[in-house]
Amino acid sequence: MKIICDKTNLLKAINSVVKGVSSKTTMPILEGILIQTKDNKVKFTTYDMELGIEYVIDCEVIEQGSTVVTATVFSEIIRKLPDTDISITLDEKELLVIECEGSLYKLATMKAEEFPDLPTIDEENSVEIDQKSLKDMIRKTIFAVSTEAHRPIFTGCLFEVKDNQINVVAVDGYRLGWKKKYLDQSTSDFKVVIPGKTLNEVNKIILDTTDNIKISIAKNQGLFEMENCKIVTRLLEGEFLDYEKVIPKNWETRIRVNKKEMQECFERVSLISMSTLEKERKYPVKVTIEIGKIVISCKNQAGDAKEEFMITTEGKNLEVGFNPKYFLDALKAIDDEEVFVEFGSSLSPSIIKSVEDTGDYVYMILPIRIQE
Amino acid sequence: MKIICDKTNLLKAINSVVKGVSSKTTMPILEGILIQTKDNKVKFTTYDMELGIEYVIDCEVIEQGSTVVTATVFSEIIRKLPDTDISITLDEKELLVIECEGSLYKLATMKAEEFPDLPTIDEENSVEIDQKSLKDMIRKTIFAVSTEAHRPIFTGCLFEVKDNQINVVAVDGYRLGWKKKYLDQSTSDFKVVIPGKTLNEVNKIILDTTDNIKISIAKNQGLFEMENCKIVTRLLEGEFLDYEKVIPKNWETRIRVNKKEMQECFERVSLISMSTLEKERKYPVKVTIEIGKIVISCKNQAGDAKEEFMITTEGKNLEVGFNPKYFLDALKAIDDEEVFVEFGSSLSPSIIKSVEDTGDYVYMILPIRIQE
Repeated sequence: MKIICDKTNLLKAINSVVKGVSSKTTMPILEGILIQTKDNKVKFTTYDMELGIEYVIDCEVIEQGSTVVTATVFSEIIRKLPDTDISITLDEKELLVIECEGSLYKLATMKAEEFPDLPTIDEENSVEIDQKSLKDMIRKTIFAVSTEAHRPIFTGCLFEVKDNQINVVAVDGYRLGWKKKYLDQSTSDFKVVIPGKTLNEVNKIILDTTDNIKISIAKNQGLFEMENCKIVTRLLEGEFLDYEKVIPKNWETRIRVNKKEMQECFERVSLISMSTLEKERKYPVKVTIEIGKIVISCKNQAGDAKEEFMITTEGKNLEVGFNPKYFLDALKAIDDEEVFVEFGSSLSPSIIKSVEDTGDYVYMILPIRIQE
Repeated sequence: MKIICDKTNLLKAINSVVKGVSSKTTMPILEGILIQTKDNKVKFTTYDMELGIEYVIDCEVIEQGSTVVTATVFSEIIRKLPDTDISITLDEKELLVIECEGSLYKLATMKAEEFPDLPTIDEENSVEIDQKSLKDMIRKTIFAVSTEAHRPIFTGCLFEVKDNQINVVAVDGYRLGWKKKYLDQSTSDFKVVIPGKTLNEVNKIILDTTDNIKISIAKNQGLFEMENCKIVTRLLEGEFLDYEKVIPKNWETRIRVNKKEMQECFERVSLISMSTLEKERKYPVKVTIEIGKIVISCKNQAGDAKEEFMITTEGKNLEVGFNPKYFLDALKAIDDEEVFVEFGSSLSPSIIKSVEDTGDYVYMILPIRIQE
């Protein structure tokens, strides 16, 4: 194998695929990048047995071939080489020779035949959306994915296509994020749960462009396809929450607040709420709504915190407790200047949404009982 | 106690003193900031029994007084408050009440009387230099300070005033950094060793200005004095290296190289040199000098690295081994575009210095024997 690639292109490919490299593995081959030429292209592949990433770039192929090289050293060397053409050759001693101006590196390789095949996808369903929209859908839901391994189905996001709408939903038992998007194409319905880890990687690879990405679904596998890049992932098995049913339809108290002001108040109150030494005990932040006013407060052995500011209120007065982190996550995810918060009682869930609400993002948060 | 301070000033004071807060202590009082009013000023003090920092700011003092508050929570709250006047009061329950617009925080306090006194400095000697110069002297030596606790004297930098010159020297047994500055004032000679930890903190607090800083020396203590801020530190006891004697006077081989090119080559070769699995074994980088050419190379089970480029050479051909980190540290510390490297034999120390050498910075590095 002998190829000559432009460094910028090469680095783009390597930066994308290294995200699929297994960090904890007893199989050294999974720490590698598979390099395969085909005609005048070279394909880089990584696979950790759950998530596989392929990236193809154009290059000058002088001799066809394939090999596997340890991802970390290889990617670091390419990253630090000057910004010019780089020659990569598999020599007769099975060493990968990297040459560029006065630099010459030789790395040990592994056999391409030993690299596991990525699962083949017998496409049953698919949908296409622009990358920018997918990025936004992931960003607004991923933080609500559960980190608790004992309920694996909730460690992923639901991707559901129904009635020409795509719904991405994450839920961890305390809060729920649901981002919708209407599709301008007719697509058959499907419903799968994609691991949070995969979506984090997809999010790093996709760009803020209107270029499309195709999501294809097979029996146990999902496939994200862009120009040059494919991401294969296993799907999570199990029954997801019937999310539409749990969203409250009515509110008893509704407030309209400046998002930045509320976010800063919650951040300051969190300093007290989080600074307790009794790690086991949860100190919720108390939200008190009176006509025209909100008070956010917290009290524990580290001290007292109280934030008070004027807002627009509708409905009943209210006192309710929250984990401030869950509130902050939602405020950070909403892009608008003002938000509505719709409360039920002090024991029922609340909804946070942007004032310029087109109904396409719903964030629900469960209250915590306040221990006085 | 009741004071009203501008947030920007307050934060500047707190950001400076928090660096002296003890992180690992069984004495909670050392995790605190001592707040003391005097006339129309407030002083903030921290002290970890080795390093003490005081910072004084102007403020409106409504009621004189003093208290101690845990540094972390207090500094985080001030940091996140809006950019306006902040009122700080010690109430009748001994709680520190922080008020600002709609925000109200109450923090537990400790008694000012329990805060340890900073050592008093009976000044024996002193020197004044501009802060910018001190910053540069610290930056060019501090990385060569030893981290090995069994030779405590080398965990600090020598500060020596001799013949109207100030010398700052650090040495760790493998390399030595020596920065000199001629003084435009006549000062009596002294010689002390200041802990590296102190100098790191001093470096963070001093600014890139021509404002002076006064360094005073007492029996076992040193004092750095700026406008508003004082830093007290214990001194290290023991005999420092007779550094002037170990610097070689002559060279057998001298090269003149572009600093950036050499730095990038060493960084790439380090990727191989550092990537070995045998942590115990040191793989030096080999530097080979032939007429008009340098080759930097390394070989281990991760692979081979070879960098070759044209340079200006004088004297004998040479082959010598180095720890690439020690070479890189020096190249990063030198600000000029080109450097001279003066080699002795493959077993004697080398000197790195800038081409525009005014003799005010000397970096010496010991070679490592190359195991072929």
